[in-house]
Amino acid sequence: MTMNMTLHTDKYQINMMYAHWVNGSLNQRVAFEVNFRKLPFGNGYAVFAGLARVVDYIRDIRFSDEEIAYLREQEEQYDEGFLEELRAFRFTGDLYAVPEGTLVFPNEPLLRVEARIFEAQLVETAILNFINFQTLLATKASRIKQVAPDDILLEFGTRRAQEADAAVWGARSAYIAGFDATSNMRAGMMFGIPTKGTHAHAWVQSHETELESFRLYAKALPNQVTLLVDTYDTLKSGVVNAIRVAKELEAQGKRMDAIRLDSGDLAYLSKQARAMLDKAGLPYVKIVASNDLDENLIFNLKAQGARIDSWGVGTKLITAADQPALGGVYKLVAREKDGAMIPVIKISGNPEKVSTPGIKAVYRIVNRDTGKAEADYVALIEEQDVKNGEPLTLFDPVHPYLSKVISKYDAIPLLKPVFLRGELAAAMPDLDQIRAYHRGQLELFWPEHLRKLNPEHYPVDLSLTAWQQKLDLIQQHKS
Amino acid sequence: MTMNMTLHTDKYQINMMYAHWVNGSLNQRVAFEVNFRKLPFGNGYAVFAGLARVVDYIRDIRFSDEEIAYLREQEEQYDEGFLEELRAFRFTGDLYAVPEGTLVFPNEPLLRVEARIFEAQLVETAILNFINFQTLLATKASRIKQVAPDDILLEFGTRRAQEADAAVWGARSAYIAGFDATSNMRAGMMFGIPTKGTHAHAWVQSHETELESFRLYAKALPNQVTLLVDTYDTLKSGVVNAIRVAKELEAQGKRMDAIRLDSGDLAYLSKQARAMLDKAGLPYVKIVASNDLDENLIFNLKAQGARIDSWGVGTKLITAADQPALGGVYKLVAREKDGAMIPVIKISGNPEKVSTPGIKAVYRIVNRDTGKAEADYVALIEEQDVKNGEPLTLFDPVHPYLSKVISKYDAIPLLKPVFLRGELAAAMPDLDQIRAYHRGQLELFWPEHLRKLNPEHYPVDLSLTAWQQKLDLIQQHKS
Repeated sequence: MTMNMTLHTDKYQINMMYAHWVNGSLNQRVAFEVNFRKLPFGNGYAVFAGLARVVDYIRDIRFSDEEIAYLREQEEQYDEGFLEELRAFRFTGDLYAVPEGTLVFPNEPLLRVEARIFEAQLVETAILNFINFQTLLATKASRIKQVAPDDILLEFGTRRAQEADAAVWGARSAYIAGFDATSNMRAGMMFGIPTKGTHAHAWVQSHETELESFRLYAKALPNQVTLLVDTYDTLKSGVVNAIRVAKELEAQGKRMDAIRLDSGDLAYLSKQARAMLDKAGLPYVKIVASNDLDENLIFNLKAQGARIDSWGVGTKLITAADQPALGGVYKLVAREKDGAMIPVIKISGNPEKVSTPGIKAVYRIVNRDTGKAEADYVALIEEQDVKNGEPLTLFDPVHPYLSKVISKYDAIPLLKPVFLRGELAAAMPDLDQIRAYHRGQLELFWPEHLRKLNPEHYPVDLSLTAWQQKLDLIQQHKS
Repeated sequence: MTMNMTLHTDKYQINMMYAHWVNGSLNQRVAFEVNFRKLPFGNGYAVFAGLARVVDYIRDIRFSDEEIAYLREQEEQYDEGFLEELRAFRFTGDLYAVPEGTLVFPNEPLLRVEARIFEAQLVETAILNFINFQTLLATKASRIKQVAPDDILLEFGTRRAQEADAAVWGARSAYIAGFDATSNMRAGMMFGIPTKGTHAHAWVQSHETELESFRLYAKALPNQVTLLVDTYDTLKSGVVNAIRVAKELEAQGKRMDAIRLDSGDLAYLSKQARAMLDKAGLPYVKIVASNDLDENLIFNLKAQGARIDSWGVGTKLITAADQPALGGVYKLVAREKDGAMIPVIKISGNPEKVSTPGIKAVYRIVNRDTGKAEADYVALIEEQDVKNGEPLTLFDPVHPYLSKVISKYDAIPLLKPVFLRGELAAAMPDLDQIRAYHRGQLELFWPEHLRKLNPEHYPVDLSLTAWQQKLDLIQQHKS
């Protein structure tokens, strides 16, 4: 079982690398940008994630003997000289990306690779695989956080995740977006995420009675007692027995943490259980709920007055069930010609698939009067007016008549250098820094952009220069 | 970055293990069974997959220093004696499972773990993670295979997969179910799956003209030329240039493989492109199509007379987009008491969630007259009548009046020993054997059970003894 991720790529990348090698064009410098065209789940924003994984992957790329032997056997057309070239392969290019935890939007560059085409092709597939999934998951988790901002959120999805990596990287993405803990111990160990978990129905079933099983669990872990109360009958048996055990713990000077509801009508059961606990003098015992939860169900349960303190969210978060893929793409925007980088376009019959040519920067335009983000502004990297703080015309590239001028603003560049000439440009933030940065990002936006249902559209505007260049190149291709 | 999968489990498993250790019940022998309750995608069957991954995982379980140190730091309540017990942990139990590639159905045991409860708890989470995803993917791939049984099917999903494991294990699952190749080179290397791939739009864009790019690609890999024809204009530019290059290849005594369509109206474009290729004397040049395909779109394109020989299927396969999780569960069915295994039930207000107690076998009942599978028959392992070939009463456990007697049958036991006392019981089949076995499985079923839309229900029947025991235990819990 190989863990070398170098061949975690599509065969066509290797074939194109080979064809560039044969044709002597392997060192041509190119720029590729990652963006997505549509927000998932009808949300008003996405939460960028996956960069830590990209960094590990890029740094570790090596064609070892095993990879070389596999390629040799796979494709007899590959020349030995090509395989020798691969053996020496290192990523020597530049990579810029927005930091993890950044709120991001459609049609703006989230990551840029500038490198020899030989290198830039190889890394496309894995970059998209990591960024697409982790950004999708962080966005889904953020929607859940929006509807339960003050509750404890637990990621419980491993058994329904799409294999092992999705479980652990999904747990990390959820933590970035504000989840408090995961049930997955390996994710806890890999990333330092807090872990949570109590016992299953099998614990109760493997004892003669529910009460005995509760007592024995509390005896073993007296400082961390959450009891699952729905194995036989939630209100008639589970909560009654949990209360007895909580009282027994009190007699030892200890406090039970919580009960967990995992089936049935969570609104009704949580209200009844809360009343029973309160009546028994146990107002401090919290209620955890799980069972096919997502942001809509949690929102509705809260609207019904459910008395739930903590939500264990599984399947629908970890698979992003209502939209299980983000369509991020990696598009060539410039290539070297006669020593200069020239912009490149991809035409499509589908207007929104026409790429925006040229190497671009993205600035978050923050209104100095309100402290809130007004728009994201995509400009060619050589443009100076935004850097100089000159008044900007913000306009919608699809409907250009929608425009306004802003002069009192701060322009925060979103793309930061991650690799420069193959070397890591700066230390990566740790996970708690990313989480804190993400909270700060949310502060920058009006709540109207953040709400779950029908969020207000946040504009991503193109500079006049970038827009004009795009129109010119379309014209040039048509003629 | 740890690759030790031992902690790929939920925290509550470790907590329950700890509580069993504290209470001295860790060696209690138990039996857990895996089943799912509902078929995905409205399909008539599922294709079991994931066992090879389970076997690797179980064999490699070890709590190394790193895991022990993490647990010690995580939870101060864990006693050092417990951590020592973990250090010595090996899986010493029995594991039975249906072979990969088997057609399986709701409410029948697919896998059974019989072990000390200390071991059986640990492995639940990872087993479900692997089996749920890989079975889901193989089932989705099988639906696609059903609508295009004679075409070439290519798995192209890595960039939209839910992280890296989903890409490679998903590619393997698709191959089991009849896909012919994957684009993922690492999946090819790990599992020996054939790989396919040509070039991207970036290849065309990184050259001055489309024609030049096609020529240079064909020059580099002349024995494997598939040209992507939609970068600028499919019919006016792409196909025309591809035909020129095909003719140039002919002049060198070589044959171009195919053109690839990746956007636009695939029905119209494939028919037009086929006509252009045929008119140019290139009937052997095949047409590959891709672009958000799934079984419904392929079915409709074929009904419209699309001239497509090969389908590249990405996002909707690799994420099982219309239902991205299979709800397989792992339920305690028996536990040791006074030296004997006694059946255990889980009651639920939700009738279909009530478990079927006792350790069970599953037999595929094949009618000797037709050679076709008649029903699956779930019986307690100690029952002898089916083993002796006695006439069987097949009846629906939910609607018992639906019953019939069958006497001329073969009863094929589906659960095979995989681990016995912790040792691998038999060599695992290789991937091509699994693929061949899967094809044989399909032969056993009437096409009415296999069709995509409204398939005929295939019965999973419970033996009278197993059914009576379930009713008795429900009664016992109610009183």
